[in-house]
Amino acid sequence: GGAGAESLDYEVIENYAYREHQAQRGKLWVPYYVVLKWFFSLLIGLGTGLAAVFINLAVENFSGWKYAATFSIIQHSYFAGFLVYIIFNLGLVFSSVLIVTKFAPAAAGSGIPEIKGYLNGVDTPGILLFRTLIGKIFGSIGSVGGGLALGKEGPLVHTGACIASLLGQGGSKRYHLSSKWVRIFESDRDRRDLVTCGCAAGVAAAFRAPVGGVLFALEEVTSWWRSQLMWRVFFTSAVVAVVVRTAMNWCKSGKCGHFGSGGFIIWDISGGQEDYSFQELLPMAIIGVIGGLLGALFNQLTLYITSWRRKYLHKKGSKVKILEVCIISLVTSIISFGLPLLRRCSQCPDSETNPGIECPRPPGTDGNFVNFYCAKDREYNDLATIFFNTQDDAIRNLFSAKTFHEYSAQSLIIFLVMFYSLAVVTFGTAVPAGQFVPGIMIGSTYGRLVGMFVVKFYRRLNVDEGTYALLGAASFLGGSMRMTVSLCVIMVEITNNLQLLPLIMLVLLISKAVGDFFNKGLYEEQAQLRGIPLLESRPKLYMRNMVAKEACKNQKVVSFPRVVKVRDIISVLRSNKHNGFPVVDQGHNGETLVIGLILRSHLLVLLQSKMDFQNNPFPCDMRGISNRHNLSDFVKPISSKGMSIDEIHLTDDELELYLDLAPYLNPSPYIVPEDMSLAKVYNIFRQLGLRHIFVVPRPSRVVGLITRKDLLIEE
Amino acid sequence: GGAGAESLDYEVIENYAYREHQAQRGKLWVPYYVVLKWFFSLLIGLGTGLAAVFINLAVENFSGWKYAATFSIIQHSYFAGFLVYIIFNLGLVFSSVLIVTKFAPAAAGSGIPEIKGYLNGVDTPGILLFRTLIGKIFGSIGSVGGGLALGKEGPLVHTGACIASLLGQGGSKRYHLSSKWVRIFESDRDRRDLVTCGCAAGVAAAFRAPVGGVLFALEEVTSWWRSQLMWRVFFTSAVVAVVVRTAMNWCKSGKCGHFGSGGFIIWDISGGQEDYSFQELLPMAIIGVIGGLLGALFNQLTLYITSWRRKYLHKKGSKVKILEVCIISLVTSIISFGLPLLRRCSQCPDSETNPGIECPRPPGTDGNFVNFYCAKDREYNDLATIFFNTQDDAIRNLFSAKTFHEYSAQSLIIFLVMFYSLAVVTFGTAVPAGQFVPGIMIGSTYGRLVGMFVVKFYRRLNVDEGTYALLGAASFLGGSMRMTVSLCVIMVEITNNLQLLPLIMLVLLISKAVGDFFNKGLYEEQAQLRGIPLLESRPKLYMRNMVAKEACKNQKVVSFPRVVKVRDIISVLRSNKHNGFPVVDQGHNGETLVIGLILRSHLLVLLQSKMDFQNNPFPCDMRGISNRHNLSDFVKPISSKGMSIDEIHLTDDELELYLDLAPYLNPSPYIVPEDMSLAKVYNIFRQLGLRHIFVVPRPSRVVGLITRKDLLIEE
Ligand SMILES: Nc1ncnc2c1ncn2[C@@H]1O[C@H](COP(=O)(O)OP(=O)(O)OP(=O)(O)O)[C@@H](O)[C@H]1O
Ligand SMILES: Nc1ncnc2c1ncn2[C@@H]1O[C@H](COP(=O)(O)OP(=O)(O)OP(=O)(O)O)[C@@H](O)[C@H]1O
Ligand SMILES: [Mg+2]
Ligand SMILES: [Mg+2]
Repeated sequence: GGAGAESLDYEVIENYAYREHQAQRGKLWVPYYVVLKWFFSLLIGLGTGLAAVFINLAVENFSGWKYAATFSIIQHSYFAGFLVYIIFNLGLVFSSVLIVTKFAPAAAGSGIPEIKGYLNGVDTPGILLFRTLIGKIFGSIGSVGGGLALGKEGPLVHTGACIASLLGQGGSKRYHLSSKWVRIFESDRDRRDLVTCGCAAGVAAAFRAPVGGVLFALEEVTSWWRSQLMWRVFFTSAVVAVVVRTAMNWCKSGKCGHFGSGGFIIWDISGGQEDYSFQELLPMAIIGVIGGLLGALFNQLTLYITSWRRKYLHKKGSKVKILEVCIISLVTSIISFGLPLLRRCSQCPDSETNPGIECPRPPGTDGNFVNFYCAKDREYNDLATIFFNTQDDAIRNLFSAKTFHEYSAQSLIIFLVMFYSLAVVTFGTAVPAGQFVPGIMIGSTYGRLVGMFVVKFYRRLNVDEGTYALLGAASFLGGSMRMTVSLCVIMVEITNNLQLLPLIMLVLLISKAVGDFFNKGLYEEQAQLRGIPLLESRPKLYMRNMVAKEACKNQKVVSFPRVVKVRDIISVLRSNKHNGFPVVDQGHNGETLVIGLILRSHLLVLLQSKMDFQNNPFPCDMRGISNRHNLSDFVKPISSKGMSIDEIHLTDDELELYLDLAPYLNPSPYIVPEDMSLAKVYNIFRQLGLRHIFVVPRPSRVVGLITRKDLLIEE
Repeated sequence: GGAGAESLDYEVIENYAYREHQAQRGKLWVPYYVVLKWFFSLLIGLGTGLAAVFINLAVENFSGWKYAATFSIIQHSYFAGFLVYIIFNLGLVFSSVLIVTKFAPAAAGSGIPEIKGYLNGVDTPGILLFRTLIGKIFGSIGSVGGGLALGKEGPLVHTGACIASLLGQGGSKRYHLSSKWVRIFESDRDRRDLVTCGCAAGVAAAFRAPVGGVLFALEEVTSWWRSQLMWRVFFTSAVVAVVVRTAMNWCKSGKCGHFGSGGFIIWDISGGQEDYSFQELLPMAIIGVIGGLLGALFNQLTLYITSWRRKYLHKKGSKVKILEVCIISLVTSIISFGLPLLRRCSQCPDSETNPGIECPRPPGTDGNFVNFYCAKDREYNDLATIFFNTQDDAIRNLFSAKTFHEYSAQSLIIFLVMFYSLAVVTFGTAVPAGQFVPGIMIGSTYGRLVGMFVVKFYRRLNVDEGTYALLGAASFLGGSMRMTVSLCVIMVEITNNLQLLPLIMLVLLISKAVGDFFNKGLYEEQAQLRGIPLLESRPKLYMRNMVAKEACKNQKVVSFPRVVKVRDIISVLRSNKHNGFPVVDQGHNGETLVIGLILRSHLLVLLQSKMDFQNNPFPCDMRGISNRHNLSDFVKPISSKGMSIDEIHLTDDELELYLDLAPYLNPSPYIVPEDMSLAKVYNIFRQLGLRHIFVVPRPSRVVGLITRKDLLIEE
């Protein structure tokens, strides 16, 4: 069980009060609801797109200034430049960790495991709050702008999800930003759909990959898939694409500083390798294997380090967390500045034989090459080109086509080892952190190494090192995150090279297979570590040999009668932590009858409002009962702990009153016979997204059969 | 209810015999099963890829020869050329309709509605047989090669599904192509997964769009989605991509006649429009609206014509069907040859201002322009360029970039009207027929018209007519088939232009929304017409106000006791058509107890084998019972009607014997309480892919509760 993680109720609880409410609704309610759904999808797209533009703008400008300042200072003194660089990084990272630890603790990390958990049916406290949204946005500007070995993609997914869920509950109550008119999403189920849209929007915005976003949300994040939802998610992604593209067009003329250069495709390599020969399949397969191995190792190492951190480090409070991040920032700065200093510079290639490639004029990072600590003018430092550069530019350089021998093998190996270690260490610190971009950088480094080897060994000139770098990136992400289709589409969308699609598929399949041999995917591992009890889509094998009764054999079922004394409710709720209780009533012939399921959260609302208390222990008159409560009172606010029994204070007189549960119980909970195999029960639970299933004795008779024909009746 | 359509059993029936079998399995069974699954995915990819290559090769060569012959003859006499053209077409179409009507009736049409039905849980007789596969392959070569207004993509999906299902049942028994070793897919559920792979392989092969194939299978065809399946489907698609690409490389040097020219991307327009301005969004939205309208109209018209055909024409036997197709072929030939004759030829553009565009040298169809009935040498006939040409070349011309004013508006309008009508009339005839390519041709025609208008009206030179043609194609497909993500990816993959992605998304969203306003998607409409009872993914609204009992209120449940006289079984099975029966037994205290569900098909197998008959009416000894039958005896062969009660012949003595049903019944059928809302029941039925649900009285007590925690136990 997770620390504080609690299940969500994806079921619409069709109790009497709900039905009465529904009956009172006007004719326009359904169209209003549908329109609002689509309108919210639009808003999610707009919001996430704008958030992404804002983050990108901030990050690119901060790093742009940073490198510009550093480069101009090192013309005079390398030491002064070094100091400025360190301080700039430290400042940004410090502000990020401060925001996260002091203001929005749930904003740490990538957030994808938590969102995955949310969409699987587990709520992690705090994960979708307004403050988390703010913390995520500003925190990731600091951490990414500060040059840490992490990306802004995971955080953008989380950002999208936050925006979606805030819309879904009609704004943030705490910050008085809510409106009654839009609070019609009265079940976790509606919110779940919005959050799915938000995830897709996040990826679409991060990579400017709208289709990739849809697929990421559907393959990696959601647990339940519906075709209708796909359409809505798709719409949201399209909106994001339009917003981001418009913003970029607007920024093109330099209005936004360093942001807005480059096309809509982040790392365009459409000029890369056109074709491939059969001989090349072997090195490509090797890239896949390396990706699987390094990816699995990454998952394992981060798992160990994170669990160690949680056990020893992070318990000691936020000061330690802040210190940790600052030290990592220092180390990162020193390594990324210092190591390139030790490398010899190389001669720039002839601009005549390589049109379009320009050596930078100092101070500058324009073009593919960075002049850093080089003696002559027409030289560049290959390690600085990737290490001492913004992430986007570094990846662009690694992917760059038709740039043979740009890097020496030593530089790439040094970078691979150092950056891999930094990425492992940085993972799990108290800053917003995505793993996509580090993964792409690691993967493209060894991919390019393999590419260099192929160029040398096979002596083929149409082999392109940049193409191999792309395959390497795909393989590492596949080996670590274990996605297939979505990753494939994302890789194609960010590089604009469809020709490579079959090759990307190949390395992804290999790296995923190799990785799966060792451990689970990054997000599942992390979810497990954080105590998010994800239900996998398949039952375990041994469940086939168990029956439902065995899964709950030591329980003494705690249930309520239909009309129950308030004092009894209180004592029962105090005595256990169960969240659902069967309600049992007397039938006409005196036999008992299970009439439904009442949720702890509903009971607490009833106890607090006191409106339903009655003097006599007899069934109440249910008519008009829905006017007593607003339906949305019963819905737990997102990401909050919900009420606790200790918050209920009743007088002694009130304790002697009675409460009729009938109008508020869920009258038709799901039931399974006690000797159904647990694998089947698992499937029901998982496929339908349930929270409770009643295990009941075998029925004594069958009232009727329902088949396909019965469900196809027209009204 | 459909004519002969019967539900599938996606449930693994875990009866006693099955469990005993499982217990006897060796340790290696699970790995063997997994390996075989993947091996089959590989084989499906290989098979579908090769089938696609074969069909393409045949079609391109037949049409290549046809046009080459016609062009060389019309140098001397247009009339002789006309005759040859007609006869060639007629011959091919006739062979196709002959194969379909005489040998493989289930091969008519696209097959996608039937496959969709299969994956939704309804078996249409004959749809996945070996003969259907053969009929589909050769039939579609004839119908497409014969120049009818239909495509080969739908048939390829069906082909892939057939290959998959034949593998799944271990070959075709009828043709002695089966092997016991591979017959381990003992449930419809395993076969369903393979068929999903087959569908994806079909689309991947048809459009050389591997990711599009995966998404098509998942968005449009399957009803149940699982992440694991996605990976397998993805693998199959990758295999197809490799097979097709290899074959095309092999054919490049001209070894395969007219096949193999062009790249892996079918209609490459990567040279098209780079960017778009805001003003253009309006005409693009208009394209979307036109697409929605024309698409919905297409669905409606084909629905009417098909139902009319079924009622009046096709009842009269196969001669009428053959005649009908031949007449349509004649009309198509006359129109496509005759109409271009009436058009004036235009001057070829200067090859200096338009490098890369060459006017054809007669006799020839090379390049973008077709010289047909032109007086001078450097002229071309714009209508013939699209009408009197192979489909692939026509689409290539319509999509072609940087070819302004290639077509006159009149030609495009004439083509649009004539081809639309031909496509509507051809749809539903007794030949294999896909709707993708006709849809692309129709859509790109009006798209190009709008593009021409934009060029004229907005006077912008960076607007490209070919790009508008692509958007038109997307809009028509979206308006007719109502897919979103998969169509989007397919369009991008076949044209290699990622820049246009947001625009494609836009027109798709609009056209789908407009189309949905009028009717359902093409495949759903057709499935309904053919009596395939598809269950939509959502319950109807009124189901919320019904309870389970009402859905089956007039039934008197027909059930069996545990041990039952053979004579009684026979008479019950004769007296109704139900496919499942509750089995009710006496409990210890004399009360009745529902112990399971027995399927009609299982009863028939038991009656036919006679091995389980016993003399006494007492429960039998169940041990060792699994040795009596082979588990696969109980599995209904795919696409067959299954056994009927009339095939069972028993002597009078045998009729007096008894049968104990306990070892063969499904001991834990799904149950719902009688007052559960029908909407919920619908969800259970649909999400879990069930065939029977028992409606039972409210339980009298709860034995236990199952929550997330209970399902996360480790072994
Ligand atoms: N009313 C009840 N009577 C007896 N046992 C119960 C009852 N409700 C739940 N349980 C059992 O107690 C354990 C924890 O129950 P709980 O309701 O907290 O569920 P959970 O899995 O923790 O999910 P949630 O997040 O909803 O709390 C489970 O093993 C469950 O079977
Ligand atoms: N054992 C039974 N006793 C009473 N009614 C039944 C029984 N089995 C089915 N029915 C009812 O008879 C009708 C047809 O049943 P049938 O078993 O043919 O199902 P179906 O929907 O046609 O699906 P299938 O394709 O499996 O035949 C349904 O309305 C169903 O509720
Ligand atoms: Mg709990
Ligand atoms: Mg039936």
